[in-house]
Amino acid sequence: MNKIYIIGVGLIGGSMALDIKGLESNTHVFGIDTNNNHIKYALQLELIESEATYEALYDADLVVLAIPVDKAVIELPKILDHISDTTLVLDVGSTKLPICDAVKTHPKRRNFLATHPIAGTEFSGPKAAIKGLFQGKTNIICEVEKTAFKLQEKALKLFSDLGMRIRYMNPEAHDKHIAYVSHLSHISSFMLGKTVIEKEKNERDIFDMAGSGFESTVRLAKSSPAMWTPIFKQNKINVIETLNEYINNLKQFKTFMESDDFDEIYNEMENTNHIKDILNGIQS
Amino acid sequence: MNKIYIIGVGLIGGSMALDIKGLESNTHVFGIDTNNNHIKYALQLELIESEATYEALYDADLVVLAIPVDKAVIELPKILDHISDTTLVLDVGSTKLPICDAVKTHPKRRNFLATHPIAGTEFSGPKAAIKGLFQGKTNIICEVEKTAFKLQEKALKLFSDLGMRIRYMNPEAHDKHIAYVSHLSHISSFMLGKTVIEKEKNERDIFDMAGSGFESTVRLAKSSPAMWTPIFKQNKINVIETLNEYINNLKQFKTFMESDDFDEIYNEMENTNHIKDILNGIQS
Repeated sequence: MNKIYIIGVGLIGGSMALDIKGLESNTHVFGIDTNNNHIKYALQLELIESEATYEALYDADLVVLAIPVDKAVIELPKILDHISDTTLVLDVGSTKLPICDAVKTHPKRRNFLATHPIAGTEFSGPKAAIKGLFQGKTNIICEVEKTAFKLQEKALKLFSDLGMRIRYMNPEAHDKHIAYVSHLSHISSFMLGKTVIEKEKNERDIFDMAGSGFESTVRLAKSSPAMWTPIFKQNKINVIETLNEYINNLKQFKTFMESDDFDEIYNEMENTNHIKDILNGIQS
Repeated sequence: MNKIYIIGVGLIGGSMALDIKGLESNTHVFGIDTNNNHIKYALQLELIESEATYEALYDADLVVLAIPVDKAVIELPKILDHISDTTLVLDVGSTKLPICDAVKTHPKRRNFLATHPIAGTEFSGPKAAIKGLFQGKTNIICEVEKTAFKLQEKALKLFSDLGMRIRYMNPEAHDKHIAYVSHLSHISSFMLGKTVIEKEKNERDIFDMAGSGFESTVRLAKSSPAMWTPIFKQNKINVIETLNEYINNLKQFKTFMESDDFDEIYNEMENTNHIKDILNGIQS
């Protein structure tokens, strides 16, 4: 694969461009982005070598679609309209059912592979792109059986070269579980930030008291609203379910406190300490 | 100051011992702990040089009280009973009103300085102690006017040597604000961990999908229940207030989602993005 088209040269698309460029010597990376500043920075930062348009996609070996998920479901069918029979198209979005639905009857469905690399930072845009972002991370692949064998092979070789481990899942299961381990974390972090900022209006000194624990829990509240709003919209049912469970757990914790049941407060925390082993599992 | 007594040789006490030892060549650090294993490890790891008892405290230049806050309010009066007129006693607890109250009429009140170094990790015990933990961190001092001038001076010299910046605050304000920037973060993290673990009972695969964002938001859920239960108990009123506000913000976010008001969802996140500047302020 040496003609690579990155659609959306932000954190994920840009980081993928950087890693792919390093794999083969004769690779040429093209960028497509509706934001002219993104193209400008992507060229300056050498994430991409040239700007391109959809008209050039017939010549692509690989197309990586890395734009907000509401835009992705609209653009993917158009992209498939432009490619050749041998082009592989990947998306990298945080919801998988809507994008699989959007192309399920498309004549070029077999050229598309739905993926979700579990990698990123709280930053966005081309300046946030970093080398090695995908090394050691998980990539979730959905509906692999709907992609042509040869293109599956090309994709798996690429992910292996990027250092990723693969998990296969159907889009429904992906969207349900990712709501717990990713989408809910973002909401809890945003609302924690909001709660503390509301307080700060009158008490400027409060943030002098914040330490690394606060910083860690609100880190995700720096994330891009333009990226996350459509994710929450597309995964509304699952996200609301996780929010209900989270709010109920917080209410129960509060009830234990109000009734001075600190034995239960202790138990709640001790039972959750087990997250240590789970997180160790993530890192290994 | 060369005779240092650390009461509670865990993360904070042990880390302070390590830093204080490096300051003067003729320093001798003694440890007091009800947990024999802690003393054993503290000796092995060379956090302390000898074990001691309260009977030796008359000879101390400095006593650092670094035990759970429910134990601290009981032990501090006994410690003050044992020290000499020139001994400085510091506590490092995460609540300040109860400890100030516990000694307000004690004849040796002027030998005590109430402090809260905003430093730590999610780990605990002597093995968690690390050098340089306090470097660049904030130390909140309460009721400084109730401590003898000479001992204030000794304490400020010590904090300066450890690389800390000082903020003065009354205990009521400390306990109210720390509930927002520290205690609430811990509860949000514990309950997030709980919500996801409950799900995991039936779905073992879910944690394969967790990335660094999840890890960052649940990091504090590894914290010690023995340390945190008494903090929540002592700061009950303030913590319940923060929980009410946090739960209300989460409920409102859910209501916006349920009514498909994704413009408001966008606004909620965009308004909170401003946390970036605040966090940059913390780090500088």
